[in-house]
Amino acid sequence: MPNVFDRPSVEMDFEIERIAKLVEEDQARVIRLQFPEGLKRYGPHVAKRIKQHTDVAVLLSGDPCYGACDLDCDGEVDLLVHFGHAEIPALTVKKVHFVEVRSDVDVIPIVNEALGLIKGPRVGIVTNVQHVHTLDSVRRRLESAGLQCSIGSGDSRTKYPGQVLGCNFSSARAVDADEYLYIGGGAFHALGVALATGKRVVAADPFLHRTSIPDADLIVKQRYAVVAKALDAQTFCVLAGTKTGQRRLDLAFELVEHAVKRGYDAYTVTINELTPWTLYQFPAEAYVNTACPRVAIDDASLFKAPMLTPIEFEMVLGKRNLSEYILDEFSGATRR
Amino acid sequence: MPNVFDRPSVEMDFEIERIAKLVEEDQARVIRLQFPEGLKRYGPHVAKRIKQHTDVAVLLSGDPCYGACDLDCDGEVDLLVHFGHAEIPALTVKKVHFVEVRSDVDVIPIVNEALGLIKGPRVGIVTNVQHVHTLDSVRRRLESAGLQCSIGSGDSRTKYPGQVLGCNFSSARAVDADEYLYIGGGAFHALGVALATGKRVVAADPFLHRTSIPDADLIVKQRYAVVAKALDAQTFCVLAGTKTGQRRLDLAFELVEHAVKRGYDAYTVTINELTPWTLYQFPAEAYVNTACPRVAIDDASLFKAPMLTPIEFEMVLGKRNLSEYILDEFSGATRR
Repeated sequence: MPNVFDRPSVEMDFEIERIAKLVEEDQARVIRLQFPEGLKRYGPHVAKRIKQHTDVAVLLSGDPCYGACDLDCDGEVDLLVHFGHAEIPALTVKKVHFVEVRSDVDVIPIVNEALGLIKGPRVGIVTNVQHVHTLDSVRRRLESAGLQCSIGSGDSRTKYPGQVLGCNFSSARAVDADEYLYIGGGAFHALGVALATGKRVVAADPFLHRTSIPDADLIVKQRYAVVAKALDAQTFCVLAGTKTGQRRLDLAFELVEHAVKRGYDAYTVTINELTPWTLYQFPAEAYVNTACPRVAIDDASLFKAPMLTPIEFEMVLGKRNLSEYILDEFSGATRR
Repeated sequence: MPNVFDRPSVEMDFEIERIAKLVEEDQARVIRLQFPEGLKRYGPHVAKRIKQHTDVAVLLSGDPCYGACDLDCDGEVDLLVHFGHAEIPALTVKKVHFVEVRSDVDVIPIVNEALGLIKGPRVGIVTNVQHVHTLDSVRRRLESAGLQCSIGSGDSRTKYPGQVLGCNFSSARAVDADEYLYIGGGAFHALGVALATGKRVVAADPFLHRTSIPDADLIVKQRYAVVAKALDAQTFCVLAGTKTGQRRLDLAFELVEHAVKRGYDAYTVTINELTPWTLYQFPAEAYVNTACPRVAIDDASLFKAPMLTPIEFEMVLGKRNLSEYILDEFSGATRR
């Protein structure tokens, strides 16, 4: 068995001393550490290091976590330390400290590669929180290649200029760009930028040193197929999330009301962790998810019946034009 | 697709009018209905009937639920209506109404069958909440057959005399009996009575009209095998539950402290819904579950590493004698 208390093989800044200082300042007796799935395995190591600095009881949150929208805070702990995501300014939750765990990977080599794919001339630069500190250097590199660059300020769901979340692309829409350069690993955020803006996105992954162009058209076609299938449904189950930053109960009620008015059967189910097997108990010909917008987009194939976003459900109800596909997002307040 | 709003095929008392009255009295605007897994499918039907009586927004709780220890209450709703379990008096939770959904099945026919298996002479009668109202008639039937019957009062974790929970058998232990008669479906509670008391239990299932004698010895042997396997472990992950009535954080801390003092590695993970895949992120050579005591007993085979109860962990640590097997339980306050 691997020693769970070992250091990670890659150097990561878990801000141990800062956390120890906060514990002392707050006179915290019990704290909880919450990591996203990709970092969870470092939990015992981080807990051990904190306890070397200060005398505090440390709990690890064992529940799944995919964003700063999902804060595992309750009365049991004096402080929650949430790793790997930036704070969502629009959410006011007390006694949470965010450790963003920025990456120190050099992004310029993959930006150099990406230059061969960028057409420009006006490029919007976006990233996730892990690389937000690199955006100025990325901008300088692009400008030195003759491109016009913008880094937009998103709404209050995001913390940093140029930062996007899986559910919020306001920083991308805030700029007038011909296309976008996304810096970061995986396809998740880059695909979201493409879906949210309708523009071409060049994704530059500094970890795998790979570039790609996400195919938003393919996803849009899949979504229309799901919407078409849901047109035959008579019974809808509308899901309302109970995670801190995924609550849209009023929207859920509004959708059910619209559906009932139009002669459909509809009911509302609150769910914390949405999985296919949770839904076996709630038969419906289609589901509408008002919680995380990405479940419908990214996990569609896991569900036996169509899983719609609220916007797609409005298409089904005839409340919204089918001609323009709009990605469901969680919006914050607009920044001045 | 079945019509999810249809009545159940068996008549059940969901106390629709009583709920509607409570809604009016409390001027509740939003309520949540929570059902255990076996009743969840009636949620849409019950919601619809409540809305026929009173103008209230009704949510169904979609999260798994296995007991009154797991109350899905948060700030979002004015009232939680919890079905299928009796209130746990030891838990003070506001704004919860319990609908016990008693069964109207006649238990006497299967008690007559069970008489052939009962040796006596002193019989303790136990059941789950669905049948507590039948215990006096069961007692009379047994006494007419010449047996001495007792129905014990449990601690404040249970509401009714003779009632047992999966995690509390205080009402069984409260009486001096040679053996027990358990009235109810399934093997879950009857097995618990046998494990908790060390006595023979005759289980009388009025739904399937079947009697059985749970084999507690087999389970005890399995538990010793799990304990023996855990004796080789060096790293322990101690699980602390976050469901309302499954919290034993102090016990979790105490166990980790004991383990560390004895030179083991140990860390604490808080978990809401415990599943095998939740644990993949938390490597350990053995787990200790301070949440639901039945997970280790009933779901042992689901986990790749030994899953111990706190009492079993004390055996592993050498803090407790191996010679007597004691079932882990959640205790309330003793009743006068």
